[in-house]
Amino acid sequence: MTAMNLVLPSRAAGPPLVSRLAASAAVVEGGVMSNAEVLAWLDERQREQQQHVERVPFAALRGWRFDQRTGDLRHDSGRFFSVLGLSVHSDFGPVRTWSQPIIHQPEIGILGIALRDFDGIPHLLMQAKSEPGNVNGVQLSPTVQATKSNYTGVHGGSAVPYMDLFRRPGPGQVVADVLQSEQGSWFLHKRNRNMVVEVGPEVVAGDDFAWLTLGQVNLLLRHDNLVNMDARTVLSCLPDWRGGRENLVEDAGWSLHTGREVRTWITRRRAEHEVSVAPIPLAQAQGWLRTQHAVTHCNGLYFDVVAVDVSSRGREVPAWSQPLLEPRGMGVAALFVKRIDGVVHALLRARAEPGFLDVVELGPTVQCVPENYEHLPEADRPPYLAQALARRESARYDVVLSEEGGRFRNAQSHYMIIETESDFPAMSDEFRWLTPHQLDELLCYSHHLNVQARTLVAALRSL
Amino acid sequence: MTAMNLVLPSRAAGPPLVSRLAASAAVVEGGVMSNAEVLAWLDERQREQQQHVERVPFAALRGWRFDQRTGDLRHDSGRFFSVLGLSVHSDFGPVRTWSQPIIHQPEIGILGIALRDFDGIPHLLMQAKSEPGNVNGVQLSPTVQATKSNYTGVHGGSAVPYMDLFRRPGPGQVVADVLQSEQGSWFLHKRNRNMVVEVGPEVVAGDDFAWLTLGQVNLLLRHDNLVNMDARTVLSCLPDWRGGRENLVEDAGWSLHTGREVRTWITRRRAEHEVSVAPIPLAQAQGWLRTQHAVTHCNGLYFDVVAVDVSSRGREVPAWSQPLLEPRGMGVAALFVKRIDGVVHALLRARAEPGFLDVVELGPTVQCVPENYEHLPEADRPPYLAQALARRESARYDVVLSEEGGRFRNAQSHYMIIETESDFPAMSDEFRWLTPHQLDELLCYSHHLNVQARTLVAALRSL
Repeated sequence: MTAMNLVLPSRAAGPPLVSRLAASAAVVEGGVMSNAEVLAWLDERQREQQQHVERVPFAALRGWRFDQRTGDLRHDSGRFFSVLGLSVHSDFGPVRTWSQPIIHQPEIGILGIALRDFDGIPHLLMQAKSEPGNVNGVQLSPTVQATKSNYTGVHGGSAVPYMDLFRRPGPGQVVADVLQSEQGSWFLHKRNRNMVVEVGPEVVAGDDFAWLTLGQVNLLLRHDNLVNMDARTVLSCLPDWRGGRENLVEDAGWSLHTGREVRTWITRRRAEHEVSVAPIPLAQAQGWLRTQHAVTHCNGLYFDVVAVDVSSRGREVPAWSQPLLEPRGMGVAALFVKRIDGVVHALLRARAEPGFLDVVELGPTVQCVPENYEHLPEADRPPYLAQALARRESARYDVVLSEEGGRFRNAQSHYMIIETESDFPAMSDEFRWLTPHQLDELLCYSHHLNVQARTLVAALRSL
Repeated sequence: MTAMNLVLPSRAAGPPLVSRLAASAAVVEGGVMSNAEVLAWLDERQREQQQHVERVPFAALRGWRFDQRTGDLRHDSGRFFSVLGLSVHSDFGPVRTWSQPIIHQPEIGILGIALRDFDGIPHLLMQAKSEPGNVNGVQLSPTVQATKSNYTGVHGGSAVPYMDLFRRPGPGQVVADVLQSEQGSWFLHKRNRNMVVEVGPEVVAGDDFAWLTLGQVNLLLRHDNLVNMDARTVLSCLPDWRGGRENLVEDAGWSLHTGREVRTWITRRRAEHEVSVAPIPLAQAQGWLRTQHAVTHCNGLYFDVVAVDVSSRGREVPAWSQPLLEPRGMGVAALFVKRIDGVVHALLRARAEPGFLDVVELGPTVQCVPENYEHLPEADRPPYLAQALARRESARYDVVLSEEGGRFRNAQSHYMIIETESDFPAMSDEFRWLTPHQLDELLCYSHHLNVQARTLVAALRSL
């Protein structure tokens, strides 16, 4: 193990683990497991957790039904989530008024990663977890990924492993704990706690779990559909460990815009546009049709709501059925970056998505499913999309990643980081160049970076 | 003028005005106006803006009506605000389920103060403004205090003076611009932009306006019902100017809890309690009765919704009628402070109020209308209330202040700052001791300190 070569103070005497994240990121081969062992473990988990997932008609859902009056799709227990209609009115953009199905899940869940010292190197406890919506079964997930219904046992399954580490952390153990939003086009006001907690040697890895260094996780982040969305968002909420690394030394104090200017910009974007959203009965969502097999848009765009039946050995509940949201088409999430006087800046867009709690969050430079815009005139297509596709060849990062497989079926996007020339312009007040240090600051507070931007922050740090 | 004695660099050459706030706070007598002149000006404005406000039956409201189906009280234009019902369910506290009327005002307004240099001393452009709900007519208000309906001219009144300073500030002129909540028990998801903007010598004070130093404003903050709520919340969003003052020098780096611990605490308080609120027809708010003259609680508690007729010379619209919310009883808002190793700390409470956008914000140590709790057993009365009342004699600050007179009638509270012994304990996880520096940091981000806590931050800085 590379880690063995380092002589560092013991856990009791040393600085908190978080101060050693840079050392963890530097270990890209062999923490407590070699990379070959990690891949073998993932393969084995893939076999062990084999899930059989089958599309079924809504009538075959067990415990879920469409409300007779509203047409909303709900679980009989009233928990988990429901699919409602949402009516949206805004005062900007090419399409200002629409209605759509949306997932309502008011419970706040926990996405948590445990951090443990091994010979001076912090390791992350990652989980191999299959989800019914994943294109490929098992992906690398946080230590814990649980809705309140999960961890309070509403579905009658077994206890969530490691849950107590996050529900009852000791003093000084919490490295990060921040509420973050999820897809604002698909979820209404959804957010989860993103937690990182230091743990001691008494915490050991069960069969579905492995201790990886940050360097190993970053390496896996270069593989298609391997690190799941929940893991990516928690990783982004880790304090940025790169301050001390030689190849990325930057003056944390300098940036194109001051912190105050950035906050002022976000306030203005939130205040100046009116976006009003109101839940409506799903049956009243105009332009959406319900068949026996799907709730679908009349033009075949955006997404479908479908039903699946799942049988599995590895889950808390061995067999169940549930609705999933299945997007039409492959997404693009591209972050443009450039150096200004040597300091890295990323081009963020202030995005109004109907499900955001506070109107606007910062997203990547480009975030869309290109097919949804093909029927619109060129001028109404997303800014920078054409440039992102044209520059794809030279992307510094270009990986296909999945959104959460517990809610979304086959939801994949090309996540890209594209470096541009230093005079590449921000085209309007919707866009700003921010430094990684500024993003890190915003990530300490809820509701500033959307989930796609958070994935790209995790990816940017891995470069 | 005291200011004349100071030799400071000219505006063009000097640092931004905000860096000279401490100098402005030090001028407590005589900026461009002497204190006697300020009081005379306020008296004169009081006479000039004399308003005649009369309680009327709802049937006498012009332009407002109860919706026949829902019982909601709305303006015919659909703008301004409306009074709906709200159904609240929570999993904690002595009363876990209730319904109530609530004001719905989805528009984001602007509360703004202009800052201008006079001989090196920043001055604040304050407005003498009467509001129909004020107990005493005119109070000291921000430069601009305008809903979107106001400044986009929905009500057909004249243009809002100085509005453009805040809608189109030049580069580098914005000192603060942050969305902040208002009373979470009376407003549903209400928030306003709190702005401070630097302006040049071309901006002059109209009849209803005066340039005051921060020291003069702080002095007026010691008078009952003089500085209005909107001015107080904007003042709290000014960067804390006291870092360099000898009598309050404190190590910004030291505090009982780290910033991360404080943010973690807020996240946990937000996540662990479930508060679900849903708008309902006002007619369905259980326990509330509508008479010809008021919407009122069957036990005579909490508040009434009433109607007033207003005639005035000084307002944009010379005569109008409107609903107001009139609380029953005088409020108490008390902040306990103490020194820990010489550093001031204030005891904040994580409060869940039904109208907050994000479940929980930090409020004062005590915030309540004592009468509302008299029917409850001792154990269910607000923590620290008895101590606040017992220690009132020795309060460092004890002033009666009004809530916003454009929405609330005779809404007054005793605002108090009470210094305690250094071993005075925080009694539960609902409470934390934070430094003024930490409060300042949280005030840079939306939805962390409630409006009563913001008033007390402004008061604390004035001591």
